Amino acid sequence: MDKKLRDDIYIHAIEWVREAGEVIRDKMYGPLDIETKSNANDLVTKLDKETEQFFVAKVKSKFSGHFIHGEEGYGDSPTSLDGTVWIIDPIDGTMNFVHQKRNFAISVGIYHDGVGEIGLIYDVMANVLYHAKKGEGAYKDDVQLPSLPEIGNINEAIIGMNHFWLCENKLIEEQVMQKFVKDIRGTRTYGSAALEFAYTAEGIIDGYISMRLSPWDVAAGIVIVNEVGGITTDIDGKIVNMLDKSTILTCNSVLQKKILGMLKEGRK
Amino acid sequence: MDKKLRDDIYIHAIEWVREAGEVIRDKMYGPLDIETKSNANDLVTKLDKETEQFFVAKVKSKFSGHFIHGEEGYGDSPTSLDGTVWIIDPIDGTMNFVHQKRNFAISVGIYHDGVGEIGLIYDVMANVLYHAKKGEGAYKDDVQLPSLPEIGNINEAIIGMNHFWLCENKLIEEQVMQKFVKDIRGTRTYGSAALEFAYTAEGIIDGYISMRLSPWDVAAGIVIVNEVGGITTDIDGKIVNMLDKSTILTCNSVLQKKILGMLKEGRK
Repeated sequence: MDKKLRDDIYIHAIEWVREAGEVIRDKMYGPLDIETKSNANDLVTKLDKETEQFFVAKVKSKFSGHFIHGEEGYGDSPTSLDGTVWIIDPIDGTMNFVHQKRNFAISVGIYHDGVGEIGLIYDVMANVLYHAKKGEGAYKDDVQLPSLPEIGNINEAIIGMNHFWLCENKLIEEQVMQKFVKDIRGTRTYGSAALEFAYTAEGIIDGYISMRLSPWDVAAGIVIVNEVGGITTDIDGKIVNMLDKSTILTCNSVLQKKILGMLKEGRK
Repeated sequence: MDKKLRDDIYIHAIEWVREAGEVIRDKMYGPLDIETKSNANDLVTKLDKETEQFFVAKVKSKFSGHFIHGEEGYGDSPTSLDGTVWIIDPIDGTMNFVHQKRNFAISVGIYHDGVGEIGLIYDVMANVLYHAKKGEGAYKDDVQLPSLPEIGNINEAIIGMNHFWLCENKLIEEQVMQKFVKDIRGTRTYGSAALEFAYTAEGIIDGYISMRLSPWDVAAGIVIVNEVGGITTDIDGKIVNMLDKSTILTCNSVLQKKILGMLKEGRK
């Protein structure tokens, strides 16, 4: 992708993400019709839709040839990744939004001919932006994130994962995952895929595995994690298909080989 | 406990907790002998000890008749709860301290003749203090926390818990816990018992269960959760023994009955 064009897209994307976040914060704290605000589920549904529509309007007016692949379906629901595609989750971490009124994110990944060029994950309530351009490093606000720690031993790794991995499931024998949990140093569960990608990039956790995520949950995160030397695949080590749901493993490349090996033992 | 005396203790306890937190922040960010700082494990061990010693010195100089029950063992390691006992975890969430350099807390519970009178949980890096006096409500900094949401259905509850509950363990059949995880709305794992108590009090999660905690992990949290109408027991519904390790369940009283009932089905 042309660097100058990409820089222009990047500047606008950041501006719009911040603007959308401000609207969400205002509606969370400020006056809103009581009917909607009394039910956090209604509020998040409304804001999810409005935020995606906001991005659709902005992108289409400024970059009319770009496509949008968004959770709420107001975009183009593209069937290929040809051209420039904005892959957007307007509110990632819906349960956190509803229950916690924090710990959710706007996630925007911008891909050109299938290549992740820009990743933005905006922790709305904390007002913290994780952002990256391919080949130019990843940042948390103004601070460049260092390369991922060279943790190569499973027993030093903290892994983000939910608890369903340890229940009977279609992907992996739960006994293998129980051994995995005992072998690693620790587990964390934060309830937002986008933020767990951002935390992985930041080194706050050493990796994240998920059973089933959509492109908009991971598109931005993959770009950001790439820029600190991490790697993201499905749990069989295959490249993530940005047009379909997928399992996910993101971490550094040494851990990745070891974790993939462990998961393989129990793969159904 | 005499109200005037308690207010005096409260003011000093808050002052010392903030002072200790400031020292930890300074040592985390500021210059420190390189040898210690290069190894986060050494740093936390050093700060754990120094922070507890700081509290011991402060408490003993100002309230010479008080006892201290602290994780690091610089206090009195009391065998009874007679009199006034400060139950202190200088750094709760050691793994978070080491890996994340945030999401850990100073936890101080002050008990008089076995009754929890004061609870302080200080999220050091966020500079957020959860605090309560028995009968006077719980606060997050200057804002009083409302009573816990009246969630009575398991399927509406987000529960803080680690992943070992779902592995073979000595307490509960893991199959029962797997059903539990599927029945509740969601799970979170934050890696600090004190903060998970604080989040429960705040309504960010609806409860927290743990397999084995020490008095200093829970002493402050119990007081704070009490003040928003919550209840804390072991997983058999018994009062927590502040002189021994214990299982823990903290949540609102309606959820508590339901969760205890579910846990009982698999209790070993």
